[in-house]
Amino acid sequence: MAIILGIDPGSRITGFGVIEVLGSNQKYIGSGCIRTDEKASLAHRLKEIYAGVEEIIEQFNPVEFAIEKIFMARSAESSLKLGHARGVAMVAGVNKGLPIYEYEARKVKQAVVGKGSAKKDQVQHMVQTLLKLPAKPQADAADALAIAICHINTTANMVRISGANRFRRGRFVGTD
Amino acid sequence: MAIILGIDPGSRITGFGVIEVLGSNQKYIGSGCIRTDEKASLAHRLKEIYAGVEEIIEQFNPVEFAIEKIFMARSAESSLKLGHARGVAMVAGVNKGLPIYEYEARKVKQAVVGKGSAKKDQVQHMVQTLLKLPAKPQADAADALAIAICHINTTANMVRISGANRFRRGRFVGTD
Repeated sequence: MAIILGIDPGSRITGFGVIEVLGSNQKYIGSGCIRTDEKASLAHRLKEIYAGVEEIIEQFNPVEFAIEKIFMARSAESSLKLGHARGVAMVAGVNKGLPIYEYEARKVKQAVVGKGSAKKDQVQHMVQTLLKLPAKPQADAADALAIAICHINTTANMVRISGANRFRRGRFVGTD
Repeated sequence: MAIILGIDPGSRITGFGVIEVLGSNQKYIGSGCIRTDEKASLAHRLKEIYAGVEEIIEQFNPVEFAIEKIFMARSAESSLKLGHARGVAMVAGVNKGLPIYEYEARKVKQAVVGKGSAKKDQVQHMVQTLLKLPAKPQADAADALAIAICHINTTANMVRISGANRFRRGRFVGTD
């Protein structure tokens, strides 16, 4: 049993998704968004993201933190904004003692939809199906849940390849 | 009497400078760099920046935090890296309860050298002169001290214009 937190960072909306791993099953625990006050200063918004991630960790007590890896955004300006939010979300996790795992968006979509170029609504649909949810999760929450699913599948596959003997406390620690 | 912290953020090196304001005098208190381990993961480096800024605040007890404002870096990739570091430095300050002030690089150079396009060594030279230092400070530390000087001069000028009656506990709170 291990609880995994997925984070989809953004300067306006940071999605989060929490999944529990029970053997080969994945159980939905919770998801949602940290919405920052657009009218507030950048410093205040970063504080909201930090406090939000901290609160989620305290509430759900995950053992691992998975986040989308970004190479670049549409422009230098949006890269800078996104970088602020992502850095703050990561440091909130690492300050809580969690190991951080990063996954490219392509890999996340591949893991959930089977196609690296999948659209947002396909991700939402597959997350709903895989986690047997009564309704489609909100787009950012769905992305965060998809990141958590990608992390769980990646570590599970590594274990299968390596023979499970380097998997400690639910966490992949090396190949044989 | 007010202690001001200036921060020049970077993913590899974050410069810091601490200046005490005594009436119209500025007294050098300390400066230096937070150097992150280039071989470490991004999460670890962000933790080093956060912990470093936190430690500086605990050691020097500043009342205000001034940081360089960045619109964009050379590329989307470097914007993203810089954004992570800058966001983390800011949130460390705001989590310690400090008000955050942002200044454009041009304005900082203008305040210290009198020329918005001043080169790095001119900033170092003027910081040494203004603060009566025995030697040139390291480049990133000099930039951080320059940011602190820019903040002190900006708030002092505002007070002069407004008639000093909206300056509370060493901090500019509005114009008349």
